[in-house]
Amino acid sequence: MVTIVLVTPRNPLNIGAAARAMSNFGFFDLRLVNPYRVAFDEARSGVNADKVLTDAREFATVAEAVADCYLIVGTSALGPREVPLPCHTLEAAGRKLRKVTGRVAVLFGSEKFGLSNDDISYCHWLLRIPTRGEHRSMNLGQAVAVTLYELIRNGRADATPGPAPTVASADAEGRVFELLLSALEGSGYIKPPVDASQTLKLRRLIRRMGLSDKDAISWQGMLRQISWKMKQ
Amino acid sequence: MVTIVLVTPRNPLNIGAAARAMSNFGFFDLRLVNPYRVAFDEARSGVNADKVLTDAREFATVAEAVADCYLIVGTSALGPREVPLPCHTLEAAGRKLRKVTGRVAVLFGSEKFGLSNDDISYCHWLLRIPTRGEHRSMNLGQAVAVTLYELIRNGRADATPGPAPTVASADAEGRVFELLLSALEGSGYIKPPVDASQTLKLRRLIRRMGLSDKDAISWQGMLRQISWKMKQ
Repeated sequence: MVTIVLVTPRNPLNIGAAARAMSNFGFFDLRLVNPYRVAFDEARSGVNADKVLTDAREFATVAEAVADCYLIVGTSALGPREVPLPCHTLEAAGRKLRKVTGRVAVLFGSEKFGLSNDDISYCHWLLRIPTRGEHRSMNLGQAVAVTLYELIRNGRADATPGPAPTVASADAEGRVFELLLSALEGSGYIKPPVDASQTLKLRRLIRRMGLSDKDAISWQGMLRQISWKMKQ
Repeated sequence: MVTIVLVTPRNPLNIGAAARAMSNFGFFDLRLVNPYRVAFDEARSGVNADKVLTDAREFATVAEAVADCYLIVGTSALGPREVPLPCHTLEAAGRKLRKVTGRVAVLFGSEKFGLSNDDISYCHWLLRIPTRGEHRSMNLGQAVAVTLYELIRNGRADATPGPAPTVASADAEGRVFELLLSALEGSGYIKPPVDASQTLKLRRLIRRMGLSDKDAISWQGMLRQISWKMKQ
């Protein structure tokens, strides 16, 4: 099950185009993070607005948008940035994604800036559409269409989802992150105010753990206990 | 070498989007058949107009647009219509197209109606993007993007074209068609005025011959001679 997450999209035509491609290829869960108000309303009120669009849900943050997802994949038009994340071409990414049984979020950044480093810190890995070096940046609606085409071209898109995997959901992982951050603050390892780069480093650290759902629960218990102890 | 031919496109945004996807994926030869005047001018004069778009050429008919192409492929959102042409899914089409060494034209119809039966009569076969049965029709710019992605995803897009194939160009095939038609009219087999369905049947007949360039020349010679003789 693939969920498309558009992060801060600004152009109603692009939002509409993304929704249309989803409907074409059989994907129905569209989420928008902090969309440009006017754009979303305009796209949704269009006479030809797709059902995918009218059913789309809005979230204030990436964290909330991907909370129930087990794998979060970012899309990047750029070459590998200074982000310690694996980056796969779309074709390789498609092979990986088709094997996942739980809900996957694929994040697309804004038309102008793509995904921010903060957005990317929520991702397990990145996928890149193999555009030319001289003209990398794709139109948002076209990037969504091409990505979804890759996922369905071998006809497995409509497969019913299998049992939920044993990896931790983003939500569970996020709780571990919060508890670890709080424990580190409590311990004086990180001194408030916590700056953005520290947050990113920490979130990536958690990502790299590849937590299973059971381990996430264990970690939460351990960290809660540690924090409690430190407050005594 | 793949040429994209947009037949009677009407929306400047779609024309621009098609050009952008071409540039993203390394295709530079865009041709428009009888585009809606205002749309083409508007698309081309946009501040962000792509070089592909400013270099695009305009033709009055499909025949002229594909005259130098050796293989003409139509795109169809619909299921197989009553057209006696093979129809391949995009993935299968990609495999075939990647093997072709001469210039290939891929035709996209207008946003509203797709390719007409007349347009399709110029095609050797059709390709279909595997959209859902309930929502087949794609946005034009997205359809172009998805098609070109399929052609380059294995990294062979920038391969330099090989030697010209020995199959007849559309132009050569078209001359055979004209000469045969003229011979048939001259013979009384077809009585003027020739109606559209006769023309289509005849053009498909020629297509199915799979003429080599040498055979096309032979046919031209034979038919010219026949017509000359009949006029005596």
